[in-house]
Amino acid sequence: MIPTAALDTLRSVLGDRLSVSKPDLEQHGQSESHYAPAPPDAVAFPETTAEVSALVRICAARRIPVIGWGTGTSLEGHSLAVHGGLCVDFGRMNKVLAINAGDMDAVVQPGLTREELDAELRASGLFFPVDPGANASLGGMASTRASGTTTVRYGTVRDNIRALEVVLPDGRIVRTGSRARKTSAGYDLTGLFVGAEGTLGLITELTLRLHGRPESIAAAACAFGSVGAAVDATIETIQSGIPMARIELADAVTVRSFNAHAGADMAEKPHLMVEFHGSDQSVREDAERFGAIVADHGGSGFEWSARPEDRARLWRMRHNAYYAALALRKGATALTTDICVPISRLAEAIEETRRDIDASPLVGPIVGHVGDGNFHTLLLVEPGNECEMRIAGELSARMAERALRLGGTVSGEHGVGIGKRGYMRAEHGGGWDVMGEIKRALDPAGIMNPGKLVPDGPGVAGDAEGGAGG
Amino acid sequence: MIPTAALDTLRSVLGDRLSVSKPDLEQHGQSESHYAPAPPDAVAFPETTAEVSALVRICAARRIPVIGWGTGTSLEGHSLAVHGGLCVDFGRMNKVLAINAGDMDAVVQPGLTREELDAELRASGLFFPVDPGANASLGGMASTRASGTTTVRYGTVRDNIRALEVVLPDGRIVRTGSRARKTSAGYDLTGLFVGAEGTLGLITELTLRLHGRPESIAAAACAFGSVGAAVDATIETIQSGIPMARIELADAVTVRSFNAHAGADMAEKPHLMVEFHGSDQSVREDAERFGAIVADHGGSGFEWSARPEDRARLWRMRHNAYYAALALRKGATALTTDICVPISRLAEAIEETRRDIDASPLVGPIVGHVGDGNFHTLLLVEPGNECEMRIAGELSARMAERALRLGGTVSGEHGVGIGKRGYMRAEHGGGWDVMGEIKRALDPAGIMNPGKLVPDGPGVAGDAEGGAGG
Repeated sequence: MIPTAALDTLRSVLGDRLSVSKPDLEQHGQSESHYAPAPPDAVAFPETTAEVSALVRICAARRIPVIGWGTGTSLEGHSLAVHGGLCVDFGRMNKVLAINAGDMDAVVQPGLTREELDAELRASGLFFPVDPGANASLGGMASTRASGTTTVRYGTVRDNIRALEVVLPDGRIVRTGSRARKTSAGYDLTGLFVGAEGTLGLITELTLRLHGRPESIAAAACAFGSVGAAVDATIETIQSGIPMARIELADAVTVRSFNAHAGADMAEKPHLMVEFHGSDQSVREDAERFGAIVADHGGSGFEWSARPEDRARLWRMRHNAYYAALALRKGATALTTDICVPISRLAEAIEETRRDIDASPLVGPIVGHVGDGNFHTLLLVEPGNECEMRIAGELSARMAERALRLGGTVSGEHGVGIGKRGYMRAEHGGGWDVMGEIKRALDPAGIMNPGKLVPDGPGVAGDAEGGAGG
Repeated sequence: MIPTAALDTLRSVLGDRLSVSKPDLEQHGQSESHYAPAPPDAVAFPETTAEVSALVRICAARRIPVIGWGTGTSLEGHSLAVHGGLCVDFGRMNKVLAINAGDMDAVVQPGLTREELDAELRASGLFFPVDPGANASLGGMASTRASGTTTVRYGTVRDNIRALEVVLPDGRIVRTGSRARKTSAGYDLTGLFVGAEGTLGLITELTLRLHGRPESIAAAACAFGSVGAAVDATIETIQSGIPMARIELADAVTVRSFNAHAGADMAEKPHLMVEFHGSDQSVREDAERFGAIVADHGGSGFEWSARPEDRARLWRMRHNAYYAALALRKGATALTTDICVPISRLAEAIEETRRDIDASPLVGPIVGHVGDGNFHTLLLVEPGNECEMRIAGELSARMAERALRLGGTVSGEHGVGIGKRGYMRAEHGGGWDVMGEIKRALDPAGIMNPGKLVPDGPGVAGDAEGGAGG
């Protein structure tokens, strides 16, 4: 609990933009996934970096936990206030501060959402390519190191951030990076804060790298006889240097959900859904080269289209895969998994996972950003059914073990939060201790998003090795 | 000085692979630039990670400085033993441990050089794209966050490293990253050690991201009426999304040096030297689109060629720019500068620099990786002429100030070392303190490459804010 005197001090900074109302606390204690709610003690709605700094100073002096909040769409419980404290909602810091067309960058506040940014950029001919699906905030995307369908071409959010402004755990405001396209002047602090999940500070401004909107875009889907054939076609495509803008796998169970709940009429086989960006000529060439690879691997139904309506239908379906999958079982909730392996082991990883799910009583469609070796299952469980949740947790744990055994990572893009913390020792060994040492150096009191990502330090109570995974 | 007892202990690990011979100490106390020699007290030639770990443990227990050594080609005095200590020469750890064609990666030891790697990869159809010019070691390239002519297309060395093995300042061995193409499982330790210049540990193994050798490569050079016109053409090229593999500026003074000392016969005007990678068809299309932009900006002489001999001649000239420049003044040595600015400010930065040099008594050709906003001058001075060296230092200092005023960085790719440390406060403000806090957390005794990059901590004597710049 935040002591009343501390609440008064926080209120002296924010006035009525500090809330302890039950609806505000409840809303900021929820997540989009299956984790139990954990509401904060108060919610702040700052409007400036100076206010964020003032709040953090107050909390640092009193060892009150501080948790950042964007849109609440993260999937591993990143923003749950598991030790209570102050939730800092960046919803009012959502402006585009500058668009520099000549340098292809934009300076934005962390509460701006991906779709809001896209709308602001439309007239410039530029776009920000990172697309995790959800309409997340840019600050949240940076903090979880988001990626998504376009990463195979444009990189993760890390590759598309030039500079940050960060409020440190003691309230200091620092800037990392610059608007230059590269630098070798010192430690990569930008890279350190990206993916730190708010455990090292709060991001209060981002300088984003933009890309020119492609002159031409084409999309296609095609069916394969097996996941292995689809993955082999993907590997050959990547090796041949075709600059795929997206290359997504939907397995047969996912296709069934598209047919049943997203108005599709596709063969119930594994599909690749792809997109090409470039000039009219290069898109045609890329599509033809890809088509030849598809044919070599027994793929069928490949027809590419540059018509915006065809493309929109395809990607709406992919983006709504989560909801189509949920609809496979009425009233179900999903445990979402997220592993990434070297692409040469991807077919094996997916096929083992498929067999493991099929041997369980659960339904679990598989979708993957296969150009990156990353895939997800959505394990459908009845809400409140502890037995099913345990089975789903075990399937998820075996996926994590599989990822590590095959030389990969327990999280391709969803992050650690509370859900993957139990696997950090297995993945990083002594590297996890190094993360803890950095954490303690910058946040000795352990106030920034405690209970997440790093081993528990002396500052906050908790089990030393993190919670159980899954 | 390393005490005799400590030398004996080190020798118990390495036998005659520990050297205190004068030639070895002198060779490892030199750098390729104008900094005064600073030899170590001993040089170690380890062959395994376990040996490196043992050496570091011995030095940690006795607070003996440890300095990594690759090929000695860094330009900011990174490997000078300014506080004495043990130089760890990775020359015997120079193997390719694995090439994974399916995953397009390779696992290598840090002493392997860029050209050795290229030779090993030739049969695979893959290549490692980062090319800083010098035949540097991969460990050195990682530690200085190298980039170079191909960065505009393929990124810096950071973008092309998937995983590292590192010996920490207390001798622990940790692994960062994995062979997966992306991850969001925790802090980006790989990114932290890349560019840390050996101040946080010694890199003992690298997993590199490879790329397919392009089916077709074409190159060209063309002349412009002014640096401004060449830069404007560059900006339009980048904005239009033409995937340039290289786009290099040589100013009129540089072209003069090519004509005089590299067998060229070019108009003494600013030139762009470019390369295109792709299929026969895409290379043709890219070259034609670029040619149209050149014409719009009054460029002349643009003729592209896919003949390997034409291309080799062009890039041999560019790579030898350093020696051609030196030849402009008999017996001269060069102070090399390296700033990077937002590309919209690049013409301004280069033109101001040109005027500043022309107003001085020195000759200074300018070359630039202009697609990234990065450029260098080679300020030619008479060895031992302190007056000229002071003038060169002042020109370099004004370049650094110019970079910061225009929103850029004091080092695009050469790093901090001892040469740029005096500018770190100006560039990073409180961010430099954060670097120091991370350094102290991982290396509390301050033994790893002391006197470089970070503010001096309590561990090692020295001025708190680093030496003077330049």
